[in-house]
Formats: sequence, structure tokens, C-alpha cells
Amino acid sequence: MAGGSGQLIGVLGGGQLGRMLALAGIRLGHRFRFLDPDPSCPASAVGEVVTAAFDDDAAVDRFCDGIDAATFEFENVPLRTVERVARRVRTSPGAQALAVAQDRVAEKRFFRDHGIRVQAFEAVDDAASLAAACGRVGVPGVLKSRRMGYDGKGQAVVRSPVDVAEAWRRVGGVPAIYEAFVDFRAELSVIGVRSAEGEVRTWAPGVNVHRGGILARTVVPADAAGVGAEHVLAAERAVRDAMSALGYVGVLAIEFFVTDEGLVANEMAPRVHNSGHWTQDGAVTCQFENHVRAVAGQPLGCTDRRVPSAMVNLVGDVPPIDALLAVPGARLHLYGKAPRPGRKLGHVNLCAADAVVRDAQVRVVEALVAESWR
Amino acid sequence: MAGGSGQLIGVLGGGQLGRMLALAGIRLGHRFRFLDPDPSCPASAVGEVVTAAFDDDAAVDRFCDGIDAATFEFENVPLRTVERVARRVRTSPGAQALAVAQDRVAEKRFFRDHGIRVQAFEAVDDAASLAAACGRVGVPGVLKSRRMGYDGKGQAVVRSPVDVAEAWRRVGGVPAIYEAFVDFRAELSVIGVRSAEGEVRTWAPGVNVHRGGILARTVVPADAAGVGAEHVLAAERAVRDAMSALGYVGVLAIEFFVTDEGLVANEMAPRVHNSGHWTQDGAVTCQFENHVRAVAGQPLGCTDRRVPSAMVNLVGDVPPIDALLAVPGARLHLYGKAPRPGRKLGHVNLCAADAVVRDAQVRVVEALVAESWR
Repeated sequence: MAGGSGQLIGVLGGGQLGRMLALAGIRLGHRFRFLDPDPSCPASAVGEVVTAAFDDDAAVDRFCDGIDAATFEFENVPLRTVERVARRVRTSPGAQALAVAQDRVAEKRFFRDHGIRVQAFEAVDDAASLAAACGRVGVPGVLKSRRMGYDGKGQAVVRSPVDVAEAWRRVGGVPAIYEAFVDFRAELSVIGVRSAEGEVRTWAPGVNVHRGGILARTVVPADAAGVGAEHVLAAERAVRDAMSALGYVGVLAIEFFVTDEGLVANEMAPRVHNSGHWTQDGAVTCQFENHVRAVAGQPLGCTDRRVPSAMVNLVGDVPPIDALLAVPGARLHLYGKAPRPGRKLGHVNLCAADAVVRDAQVRVVEALVAESWR
Repeated sequence: MAGGSGQLIGVLGGGQLGRMLALAGIRLGHRFRFLDPDPSCPASAVGEVVTAAFDDDAAVDRFCDGIDAATFEFENVPLRTVERVARRVRTSPGAQALAVAQDRVAEKRFFRDHGIRVQAFEAVDDAASLAAACGRVGVPGVLKSRRMGYDGKGQAVVRSPVDVAEAWRRVGGVPAIYEAFVDFRAELSVIGVRSAEGEVRTWAPGVNVHRGGILARTVVPADAAGVGAEHVLAAERAVRDAMSALGYVGVLAIEFFVTDEGLVANEMAPRVHNSGHWTQDGAVTCQFENHVRAVAGQPLGCTDRRVPSAMVNLVGDVPPIDALLAVPGARLHLYGKAPRPGRKLGHVNLCAADAVVRDAQVRVVEALVAESWR
């Protein structure tokens, strides 16, 4: 790092998370290389793209040539690929954290084994074991594929034992997890970061609102009905405990349900996370910059929240840009992606000195978004 | 702009200003192309570079192919090049503003003709006219080349008539301006932006401190000794008047001397400016984003200052990165340039809710910088 020359950081995946990692990291003097099947992926605007499938060993080796550190922005990258990269170059987070997060059963067991409460669950391998799990865990419940699920895909609700065959068919007949249905007041997510030296920081937890299984909005601080300081503290403790247990380096997100009995952990993401996008404009140091700092072996930045903040996702299509840009205090982030139903195309951060003003901004942006969400 | 697909914006010059324009503009969904003689210029991390001299017509034409809008980040780009680009594509600011800013005599006349006070000055074409100008304007004074000066280069002080020949030699015997020496309390700079629709916004003026002719520090708000609210208001009015008079589109900076008789305009820059870098972390919308918005024909963002702010330049060499990153609240911006005496390699923005805290941060960073500045 002499003379301010930064590192060449390799990122597996070139989606919007990779793009925003680079936008934060280039500012610190680093350069970025991405591995992605799409040459015009969102990150192609901010670095070199090795265009290949994630399981193309020769391309993975080219990706590794000359990089100083590696990370991933997509938790469904094959574990084998991350292990291959990690043999060549310092890779954060490590393959162990990715292995846990890629398997919903391993993830739930990890939470439970580290004192982080989860709902009742059972691993399911066929329709018969699903029927048995429904008997022990109870109905209603949710069947989810163990792997490769995101934004509500690969899931089916089981309301009564007669739904078993249909649910098993809907998740595709793949290894799955059956989880007790959780009656929750709110969804809370927390983002933490741990440096290579073991320094840990967390951002203020936020309340998430989903729409059709896709995150629609995050609001910080988490002052929604039914969410108290005890939940916020418990969430921060959980992410610290999880990062320590995994010897984790980088940003980790955990999503919780807030219930009458306290927090119930839903899932974790071993990467920067959509519910942390507000930190770009609402915190002293954002999740993207601190992830890059951790991956590059640098000290972490202050994670203090500056002002009441919110994030609204742009999904499916983008409202008229000029209308968004004209909302006072709105900070627009677009990913350079073509519109498509259910696709995250960008987000708007709202930050104001006063939560009442922030809420008014959110209403204006959500009214614009309502016409374009698809 | 349907569906969030942005514009391809062409920038003449690929230095740190171009790099920071792109970092702000990519976030809004735009892409960038640069024309620069150096293929590994700072902006090469954030866009395509057409590698050529600025007067290479064929390369300028390739640069223009397919771009939606153009701007420049370097005011010494040949006027002819900007005119050539402007015949192909919407170019902001226009060639007229550039022509004024490239010629110190035209610039001073422009200020004077628009009610913005300047010191006594005369155009100088040879040693004899310099001697005559010294007689009419008085000594001490400063001789500056009319064109291509920056960071104190191409200047000579005339303390008495016997210095005339030496001064004329030192500025290289080129067309010049002789200006009365100004006894100033402080240097104040103001940044404004005007949209294609004529909407105007200004950022809070800052106090600049130079070191060896190079900007060392900007502090905002401008509460230095001898700078009052009347100076701040006059600076804001001047930049508004100048932008209106020029039909200007984009960011314009004007530097002033604060004297016993009020403000005296020193020079203007028809581009984003080093004294506005604090806006990246201290204002709701930074100068780079608003310049891109103006160039792209989009509405401007709020320019309110969020907190007491300061900017410290990293010149010649960079202090240990980890020490800079560890200063609480310090925001590091590096340009990816190799160290060299007198070269701007990056800057650090300091923002704190309290000016006392901000000042303490500045002292810590300046102590680190003092060891590396060269």
C-alpha cells in the first residue's frame, strides 16, 4: 500500500452488490476484477470482468492471477469455486461461513448451537419425511429448499397435512427444510463486520418490510410497533456471536422475526446485504466500504448512524428518474440493469435530520415506486 | 432514461476529477468514457479511456461516437477540441465559459464587467509593456501567464521595477497578466451549479489554505478570522451572477481574496474544483453528482451542508493508509496515482457534528500529512 497504491480485489459475482463494493473501494485506491457469466453485468461499469460460469476452473484461475484478495457478492457461488480461489489468495469470508449459509439446515443448526434462537425445524429428504416433520413440528409451516433460495423462491407453505405432496412438488423435490410458521410482529435485520484482526462493528438494526417475498423497505432506527431496545441489543449480540464463532472476516447480515417470545433468527447472508444499503447515505462508513476494508486487511471505519434513514427498493421497473431526483434528500442508486418483473434495479436512500421528515420522504418515494413495482 | 438505463457521458480528461465524476454518476445509472493521453489515468478504473492527445481529431471523433453528453474535467483542454465535441453532442459547460476561464485577462475583464470586484490588472505582451504596467498598477504585483497556469505555476512576483526582466523570463516570455498584489486576510472559494433549465444552487463557501501554491486545506463553514457573513453572501451572489451571465451549465468555482475592502475575485474554474471536495461527505449532494446531473440534463440535488466539514489534500506522497483510515470520521479518497513531489494523490474529508471535533480530526490528519507532503 506504499504511496497509496491500492490492492486488486477479486469479487465472485458482478451484480449490484459487486458494483457497490467497487464504488466504495475504488475511492480507497483499490481496483476490482469480477467473475460473472454476463459481460455487461452491473459491475462491468467499475472493473474488469472475467466472463465465465462460476464452475469454469480455467476462468477461475485467470480470475485469481494477480489479485491481492478475494471475496464474493453472491452466496450461491459454488463452494468448490470459493475453495479453489482460497487456495490461491486470501479470501474473505471463508468457505466455512459460505458452507453454513448455503444450507438452510446447517444455518439453523449453527444458530441453535450458538445460542441464537430459531423456530422448530427438520431436515426433509422426501414426501414421507416431510409428512413426518409436519407431525413433529406442527402445521402451518414452510417448506424451503435447503439450497439456492432467495427472494422467496423455492418455498411452499404447508397449511395442513393434505398440502404435503403439493409442497414437495413445488420446491422441486430437492433436499429441503420444514420450519414451523412464525407469527411475527416485525422483521429486523442486523449487519455486522469483522476485520482480519478480529475487530467487530455493527450498524443500527433496521426493520424490513417485504412485498411478494422481495425486500421493499428498510427503516432505521428500528422503531416500528413491537420492536424494542431489547430486540435491537439481542440482534447486535447475535451477529457478534455468529462472526466470532465463524472466525468471520467481512460483512455478515442476519434477519430475524420479532415475536412475543423475542427474536427468532430466520437466515443469514455471508455478504453485504440489501437491508444494509441505507448505510451508504445514513452511516459514517457504509457496509460496502467496511467489507472492502476487511477483505483488504485494513482497519474498519466508524459505523455510527448519522440521521434517521430509510431505503426503498426499485423492483421490476424504475419510476421516472427526474421525479426521484427531485425528492429533497432522496439519494438514488441505480444498478444499470434492464427492467424485468421481480428484478431489483436500484434503491433510494432517504436521510433527514428528523424522522418525521424522513417518513414524509419515504411516502413520496413509495408513491412513485407503487406505479412501477412489478 | 426509461427503465433506469442511464446515459453514456464523455469526459475530456481522465484525472481524479473525472474519476470522481464517474464514481458519483455511475450510482445514478450513467456510464463514462474519457479522453486522456494516459491509458492508466485515475479515471481508467471507472470507465473506458480513449487514449490520445487532446488535439488528435480522429481520436476526438471516436470519443464522440455514441456518447449522449460531454463535459471536461481539465480547463486546459484545447478550446478547439471542446468546440469540435460540441458540434457533435450536447457539451456542458460550453466553449464560451472555457474560453473566458482559459485566459486570465478575459477572466478578469469578465468579472469586472459583471460587477465582481478584481484587483488592478493589465495585459502584458513583452518586457516593455510589463514595465509600463508596473508603473500604472504599482508594485509589488504578480506576473502570471495568461494561459495554462495552475497550482502556482507560471507566476512571478515583481517587488520592484528591477525585477521586470527576471519576471518576464520566469513566466517564459508568453502573453501574461500583471496584477496588483492583494493584501488578504483569507482566501474564500464558492462552488455553484446551474442546470440546463437554469436552476441554480450553491454550496456553503469554504476558507482555503495553500502551501507552496497548492491547496492544502478547505474548511466549511467559512468561520476563519476576518471572514464574515457579508463575504459569504457576496461570494454566493458572485457565482450566481457569473453562471447567469455565461448561460452556464454545470459546476463553476470562484476563488476570492478577503480584503479590508471586501471580496476580490482571483480566478474561476469552469469545472468541479478541489475546494469543493468536502461536499462528497459534508453535503447532501456533492459537486460531482450535481455536475453530472446538470450535464445529463437532470434536476439538481440539494446542496445543503450537513455538518461542519473540512478537506485536507494528500500531496507528493500518502501517509500510512491504515493510520488515515483509523482516524474516527475521516473519509479517505485516493486517486490511484503514483507519488511525485507536488502531485495531488488524494484527500481526506473530515465531518463531525461539532466543529471542535472536526478541528481535532483536522489536526490529527494534518500531523500525518506533514510527514508525507513533498
